[in-house]
Formats: sequence, C-alpha cells, structure tokens
Amino acid sequence: MDKPLKDGRDGPAKANGARFPARYLPILDWGRSYGRETLTNDLTAAVIVTIMLIPQSLAYALLAGLPPEAGLYASIAPLVAYAVFGTSRALAVGPVAVVSLMTAAAVGGLDLASPVEYAAAAAVLALLSGLFLIAMGALRLGFVANFLSHPVISGFITASGLIIAASQLKHILGIPASGHNLYEILISLFENIGAVNWITLAIGASATAFLFWVRRGLKPALSKFGVKPRMADFLAKAGPVAAVAITTLIAWGFDLPSAGVAVVGEVPQGLPPLAFPAFDIGLWSELAGAAVLISIIGFVESVSVAQTLAAKRRQRIVPDQELIGLGAANVASSVTGGYPVTGGFARSVVNFDAGAETPAAGAYTAVGIAVATFALTPLLFFLPKATLAATIIVAVLSLVDFSVLKRSYGYSKADFAAVAATVLITLGFGVEIGVSSGVALSIALFLLKTSRPHIAEVGLVPGTEHFRNIRRHEVETNPRIVTLRVDESLYFANARFLEDYIYDRVARDKGVEHVILMCSAVNEIDGSALESLEAINERLNRMGVTLHLSEVKGPVMDRLKRSHFLDDLTGSVFLSQYRAVKTLSEVSADRIA
Amino acid sequence: MDKPLKDGRDGPAKANGARFPARYLPILDWGRSYGRETLTNDLTAAVIVTIMLIPQSLAYALLAGLPPEAGLYASIAPLVAYAVFGTSRALAVGPVAVVSLMTAAAVGGLDLASPVEYAAAAAVLALLSGLFLIAMGALRLGFVANFLSHPVISGFITASGLIIAASQLKHILGIPASGHNLYEILISLFENIGAVNWITLAIGASATAFLFWVRRGLKPALSKFGVKPRMADFLAKAGPVAAVAITTLIAWGFDLPSAGVAVVGEVPQGLPPLAFPAFDIGLWSELAGAAVLISIIGFVESVSVAQTLAAKRRQRIVPDQELIGLGAANVASSVTGGYPVTGGFARSVVNFDAGAETPAAGAYTAVGIAVATFALTPLLFFLPKATLAATIIVAVLSLVDFSVLKRSYGYSKADFAAVAATVLITLGFGVEIGVSSGVALSIALFLLKTSRPHIAEVGLVPGTEHFRNIRRHEVETNPRIVTLRVDESLYFANARFLEDYIYDRVARDKGVEHVILMCSAVNEIDGSALESLEAINERLNRMGVTLHLSEVKGPVMDRLKRSHFLDDLTGSVFLSQYRAVKTLSEVSADRIA
Repeated sequence: MDKPLKDGRDGPAKANGARFPARYLPILDWGRSYGRETLTNDLTAAVIVTIMLIPQSLAYALLAGLPPEAGLYASIAPLVAYAVFGTSRALAVGPVAVVSLMTAAAVGGLDLASPVEYAAAAAVLALLSGLFLIAMGALRLGFVANFLSHPVISGFITASGLIIAASQLKHILGIPASGHNLYEILISLFENIGAVNWITLAIGASATAFLFWVRRGLKPALSKFGVKPRMADFLAKAGPVAAVAITTLIAWGFDLPSAGVAVVGEVPQGLPPLAFPAFDIGLWSELAGAAVLISIIGFVESVSVAQTLAAKRRQRIVPDQELIGLGAANVASSVTGGYPVTGGFARSVVNFDAGAETPAAGAYTAVGIAVATFALTPLLFFLPKATLAATIIVAVLSLVDFSVLKRSYGYSKADFAAVAATVLITLGFGVEIGVSSGVALSIALFLLKTSRPHIAEVGLVPGTEHFRNIRRHEVETNPRIVTLRVDESLYFANARFLEDYIYDRVARDKGVEHVILMCSAVNEIDGSALESLEAINERLNRMGVTLHLSEVKGPVMDRLKRSHFLDDLTGSVFLSQYRAVKTLSEVSADRIA
Repeated sequence: MDKPLKDGRDGPAKANGARFPARYLPILDWGRSYGRETLTNDLTAAVIVTIMLIPQSLAYALLAGLPPEAGLYASIAPLVAYAVFGTSRALAVGPVAVVSLMTAAAVGGLDLASPVEYAAAAAVLALLSGLFLIAMGALRLGFVANFLSHPVISGFITASGLIIAASQLKHILGIPASGHNLYEILISLFENIGAVNWITLAIGASATAFLFWVRRGLKPALSKFGVKPRMADFLAKAGPVAAVAITTLIAWGFDLPSAGVAVVGEVPQGLPPLAFPAFDIGLWSELAGAAVLISIIGFVESVSVAQTLAAKRRQRIVPDQELIGLGAANVASSVTGGYPVTGGFARSVVNFDAGAETPAAGAYTAVGIAVATFALTPLLFFLPKATLAATIIVAVLSLVDFSVLKRSYGYSKADFAAVAATVLITLGFGVEIGVSSGVALSIALFLLKTSRPHIAEVGLVPGTEHFRNIRRHEVETNPRIVTLRVDESLYFANARFLEDYIYDRVARDKGVEHVILMCSAVNEIDGSALESLEAINERLNRMGVTLHLSEVKGPVMDRLKRSHFLDDLTGSVFLSQYRAVKTLSEVSADRIA
C-alpha cells in the first residue's frame, strides 16, 4: 500500500516557470503585449508619482544626511533598472524614510570629514546592498527575509518613524542636533533649545499643520465643494508640492536666509554624474554589515507592499526576482550619485491607484524626475529645510502604530516580547541594534518554546477512534498503558527534556507496563533525539516497561528505518494509536477501563 | 466535556523536590546516612583516582600553558567545593583535556608578557566561568546546554583531541612550536623540525608506546599470568605513574637536562596560595566570551558523564544544581592558584568502577593530591615534559572518533553538516570558533527545515477514520475538497511558505471548493502565521473557496479564540478530520469518490 517516495518534501509547483532569459528579464514578458491603453495609464500614474516624489526625494536625502540632489539622482536610474528587472507591476522604487534613516546611521557612524566622502560612502552602501540583493536573488535565498517576523517589522517601523520625526525637529526649530537614537536626539535638541530660530519655527510649524490638514481634512472639504473624488485625491497628493512652492516663494520674497532660515541652497543642474564607487577595503568592510541589514529591511518592506498590490489584481510577484530587481536598482543608484533605495509603501499605493499597469510607469517617472533636475533645481535655492522636514514628519507619523503592541499582547506573549524589545531597543540604541535584537529575540523565543515542548497524556474519546488530552477531555485510559503525545518535532534542543519527562512519569506510577509515544505531531527526529530515544528504550527496558511508537509520519519512519533503533525497540510501531491501545490491552489481557 | 485549563503546558513533576537549604547543599542529603562501609568504598576509590590524577593534572597544566603546580592546585579545592555542592555521586572533578586546551586558546590569545600574568589570567577565567555557571544554576538555565547538539559535541571533542595531540608533539620532539589550530601547529612543527632533540624523542616515543601498550595489551597479559581482573585493572590505571617514575629516574641518573631534555623543574612545595584574582575590567571583558564557552562545554561534558553513571545505579542528578556545583569548583580553583575545571570523563568512570558512593570520594582525592604537593613535588624536578606529553596524547586519542561522521551521514544530512563543519572549523580555526560555528549551524539548519515544512495532501484510508498522504498510500479523495496536513508549527519563518503553497495548489485546480488545513501536527500558530491565515482566508474567499481547519490542538485553539480569526473564517473548525470530510461531502451533496 505504501508508495515509495524518493523525496519526502512535496514542494509546491514552481511559482515562476519562465525560462532564461525571461526568468531574469521580466520586461520581455510584459513588454511584448505593451499597447496604447497601457501606455496612457502608465503615463498618468507616472505624472502623479513624479509630483509626489520630487519633495519626498529632496526630504529623504536630507534625512540621510546627503545633499538634496542625491535624492533626485536616487529617483532616476534606479527606477529604470527596476523597470527592467522587477516583477511587480505597481511598485514605485526610490528613496524611502526607513532606509534613509539607516543610511544616516551607517554612514554617520563613520565619522567622515567632508560631505564628498559622506556621499561616496552612501554610494558604496548602495553598491554593497545592491550586490548583496542580487546574490541573494541568484541563490534564491529570498526566504531568509521570512525570519523577520511581522511583529518585529511593525515594531521596527514604528520606532523608526518616531526617531525620524524626532530627528527632523531640528530643522523645524532651526537648531543643530544630532544622534542616532531617540535619547541622543532629544538630549541634543534640549541642549540647543535656546537657539530656536522663530521664523524657521513659524514656517516649519505651519507647513506641518498644513500637510496634516491636507492629509485629513482636504479631501472631505473638496468633496463638499463638488470636486470629483479622483481629482480630490490628486490634489491631496499634491499638498507637499504646494507647501514647497508657497514656502519657497515666502523665503525668496522676504529674503529669509539672511534672517537665519536654513534653505536648500545651490543644487547642481543636470543629469546625475556617472561614477563607480572607488574600492576601499576598509570602508567596504565597515559598511558591509549595514548594507546587509538595509538590503533585508528594504526587501521586506518592498516585497510586502508589492505582494499586497499584486494580490488585488490577481497577479503574482516572484520574490527571488524582486531581489534582483531591487539589487539592480541599488547598483544603478550607486553609480549615479544616489544612495540605497527600495520600494516605497505610500508611493506604490499611489502608483497603483493612479492606474499603473506595468513597471514602465516607473521608467516614465524617472524621465519626469530627470526633467525636474534640469528645470526645477534653480528654483529650489530658497526652499526652506523646515518645509522638507514637515513633509517627512507628516509622512512617517502615519507609519507609527502602537496597536501592534496591544494586539500581540492579547494573542502571544512571545510576539509581544519581540515587538516590545524591537521598539525599545530601536528607540534607545538605534536602528541597526534594534532590528538585529528583534530578529535574534524572536528566533530565540521560538527555539526556547520548541526546547520545552507541550507533552500531553492522552486517552480514548469514548465511541470514537480519537485520542485527546486527559486533562482537557473525559477519556478512557488503561492504568497499564501510558500514551504521551509529544507536540513538537524531536531535535537536539528538546531531546533531554523528553527523556526527563518520561522517566518522571514512569517513576511516579509503578503500574505502568507500556509507554506509547504518539508521534502524530512529530515532524522530525534528528540524530540527538534518536540517541535519546535509544536511551529511553534501554532504561525503560531495565525498569520492565516496553516502549512503543504510534502514528509515525512517513518521512520520519523512512529515516528511523535507516538506524538501528527499530531493531532495538522493545515494543512495536503502530500505524494508528487506536490499534496500539487495542492490541496492547488484549495482550495484557485487560480491557480498557 | 472540555475542562478549562489555565496553563496549556503540562510540565513534568519537579525533578528535585528538596527545599532550601538542601536544594543548594546536596551534602546535607547524602551526609546524613554516611556510614563506615561507604567510607571504605569512597576511600578506595579516592586512592585509585589520586594515583591517576597526579600525572594527569601535571600534564593538563602543561597543555593549558601553565606551570605544573597549577594542575595540582586545580585538583584540591575544586574537588572539595564540588563535594559540597554537586549532585553526582561519581563525578571526578579537576583539570580536563578540552577545557585545558580552551584555556590555552583564551589566555594564549591575550599576548601576555610574563608567566605570572598568564597564571593570573587563567585564574580570572576560572572565576568568570564559575560565576557564570552559578548564575545559570540559580536561574535554572541548565537547559541552554541542550542547544549543543550531540553531533556538534562529538565533532568538537574529536577535533579538539587531534589539536591537543598535535600540540603535544613539540614536547615529544623537543622543539618549540605554537598555534591554536591544527594548521598553525603543524606549520610551526615543520619549521622547527631540524632542531629535534633525539634523546627527548627517544623518551617521548617510548613513553607513548609504553602507555598505548598499557592501555591495550597490559590487562590481557596480566590475566594470562593469573592476576585477578580488579588488580589488573588497577595496574593498568597506574601505567602513567610508572612511566613518570621510570623516565624521571632515567633523567636524573643520566643528568638529561644537561643534554637539552626539557624537564618539569622546580615545583613549589606546599598547599596552594590563597588569592582572589585582581579586578581588571579590560582583562575580564576580554575573557568573558571564552569563559561562557568554557562553562557550557565543561558543563555539557560533565553532565553527560554524570547522567550516564547515575543511570547505572538508578540515581538522578539535578542539572541545575550541577551548574552550581561546577561553578563552586571553578570559583574555588580561581582563588587557589588553579584554572578552569570540570568533571572528567575517564576519571569519573574510574571513580565509579572503583566503588565511589558519594561526592566525599572527591574530597578524599583532594586530600591525596594535597599530600602529594607536600611530599612529591621535589621528586618531580627531573620529570621529562615528553612523558607528560605522552600521557596526554594517549588519553586524548581515545576521544577521537570519526565514526559519528559516518553514522550521521546515514541518518541525517543536517546532523552530518553540523558535525563536519564543527570538525573542520575547529581544526582549521581553533576551538572557540569551531564550537560556536557548530552551534550556530545546527540551529540555522533546524530553522531552515522548519521554515520550509513538509506539507502533505491527505486522503481517507478506506474502512478507517484515518487520513494519510495521497502520494504514499492508496486513499479516497474528493475532487471538491483538498486537505493539506502541515507537518510543522506555523510561525513567522514559514507563514509565507504556507501562503504560497496553498495559492499554488488551489490555482492549479479549478474544481476545488473547500480547503481543509489538518492541524494535527501544528503545535503553535504565532502572530505572523495568524496574519497569514487571515490573508489566506480572505483570498480563498475571493476565489470562491472556503477554508476549514481540523484537529486543532487544545493550546492552539485556546489562542485562536483570543483573536478575530475564527469570526472571519469562511468555513468551520472540525474536531476530527473524518467529521470534516463527512460533513463537507454531504453539504456538497457529493459522495466520497
């Protein structure tokens, strides 16, 4: 009846059946059927995203500690690269808040003297991150991102949002401040609070208030005036552009820089410079760890929004190819004066809602930004930094969500511990330690749980062939037979726990003749656990107790057959627990009590 | 019928019911019934172990890079401390090979100028290790040692044995050599091979040959001459003492030191000095990592021999109290001129076989060694270091066992990878990196396995209520119902895998109306997996497919009830898979095909 099976692991069908080169160039797939209607939709989306992206890219460059043009440069070549290699039809790639913050933490920690060195280090970071992503994609290692649990991601994003908002207060207040965690930033702000520039504060505060109102109150107000929803939506998205335009005009009109209001200043006009980052083993190895973290965080953020959007249109993305797409985007960024990029959440949703149908929309957006670097840069001279800070603050505060703490507390203490630790450590010690600790803790808690598995003593549910926990259900048991259901795979971390548990159970009860290990939930028995089972078998034998197994899964049984254990086992292996109890009850000439 | 249960985790009875102070002072337990017969047995064992321990302690001190008296000192106070706090009746504590090697690696890596500083650092290592062990014991964290899997331990011990043997070749050859991994040591030996001292080599080689013969050939030879087995055993154990005595006499008689043969030289006479290691934050933090590793390795080695011996006499040891016993031994060692100690394998077996009944045997051994430090130290001046090296080589080569590679290869590729990596990395890069990599790799492989769980599509075994894998058994299925049995707990690392698997399965087959997740092997659903289940439920719903669960375990169900998932679930939760299929087949007015 058993069919032999060479590989116990029945994998699902390949998510991506495409062959080389289409496997690595999704553009060959969607490009073939590209028509006029698709073009119109993609162009419309690109215009809207471009308008949204201009102030964002300037602001995030500021957050990363880079000159504003770095943000624009990071929004050109990377978008084209992703359009060629990416699989999501709606993902909008570019500078994003969390990755900009991580860039600031990584490069800011190097203690570099000049802005030129700083920008060069940011480009190296993008290059390393891009190469790492491409390598992960080529090796199909996308699954490692799954080890970032949802609670850790939520906690990390929330804490990062708070740090980002705090870090922008200096621009709103017009004072110097620094630091890579909430504590340092707040102390630094407090020390310089006496130097507040009141005009800067007035601009920053009103820009922030205006942008909050645009986000919350503008759409309902426009609807009231009969503006169509789609147009209202568009106007709301253009809010930051309006804030930028108005405050720039004010700063120019009143010559605010002479009153101490910080403005963007000279921005080089023209296309990004082409330059490969210089190889410097010291710098590269100092940035390697940060590059890995930025890659994984960026990938997770990007893939989750891409998957959500794809599901809405019944499309699929290919995570391993996404790695290559994002990797190509980062490499492109590094050689064109940019810094690490990834798919942005809000931006991608806008792109999707605006009707983007293919990655080409991203390429058109790149053209829009490129035009802006020619036409708009002279106009940005008088743009107050406080306005950019306001757009960042309003954008990131929507990422802050403490409800995950409450939800996880109600559902799982381990999840709660992971999210709380991630939030607190990120706030207190910065992003890199924060997210690493969160991942380490969630893995440690999982291991801890599996190392002390739930073991239930089970009995027969009357009138059925089912066995349930004697402490939860009214079941029939036989005093000579103890059945233990181990609710975990048996492996090195819990092998000794099982040994102890069984000895204690048998030593407490002299009437026991048979111990049955019900293995319905045992998905694996590794070498250490096998040695423990051998020890259990031997010691129970010396106590005059027979050891049996029941409901052993196919793959586990295949493996046991390759060891000596089944030869030495004092009892039998039963296909079903019911048959085990029936057989042993008859053997001991005893009915189920 | 369900009994409410506050804590789903049904722990075993406490292994140690004793109350304070007996919980922390096992001596109060066995001391009460200490009689004349026990005294005689303990004394006999102590004499035999003392004779065995004298050359061993000198040799292991040499291996650790310390003066010979450090080995003697580490065999006095620690034994008394363990006798008071330890729970094993047979464990013989003192300097052991692997821990001595790890001490050499840790302290040798500090680049200290003088032997005095070196000895002080070794004492600090013992102190830190002792404090760490005591803290682990007090916090009942003994279970963390379980994360050292059996294959990793075997691989580590084998590789360490090879490194130790190689490191002793310099004493046999009479040439200088150094290094903390096999490669460094062999290169270093090769460079100095021209300077071989032939007299030293003659002594070393004949001592080695003699000791191998004693181990293998002496007992059969003695039996042939009618010597009783117990006496033959004793004489075989005394082999190293004979080698020491004979070679010392030769070195003295022929004045070999003047011929360039290295001897032990002046050994201070008298009891160990009492001195608390000076506090030096720099040194302490440099040694902290090594102290943790030494503690855990020492604990694992000690506990496994203690448990094996206890089981032979139906006694139990208490692992958490063992931590305190070993911790006390190390603290005692650190304040009396010693270095890190633990329970030795061979020595404990000898102690057990010689009839030791209580930890008092260890205290008597300590007295024996203390007497030796008075009476014997002047006689050790002419003891050739080559003889000590020979005793080490013969002792450690018995630890080298490559059969674990073959065994694990046949049983589990993951175990094989862990053991092979541990052996190779230990040999190539030293003990600390070797064991750390082994542990990290075995945990990573476990996580990897659980992140891509086995998922079986199951059907009904005809004439029963049991469901089995359709690819392994001839079973009945219904084309409208797909049942997937997930053979793993659902948690963050595999949540997305499950999502992908289910979409692929349902997308392939348009006739599917119901998906049942059979959860008999799902021991946990964490917050991330819950979100995935919610996503699966929602997306299947949009595809017109209903999601059901069956055979959900009590603790898992308790938790699901605390979330919204069960309210949103499009289908039902069935107690048994049989009932699920029966109900759904009737609902869809369709018989099981």
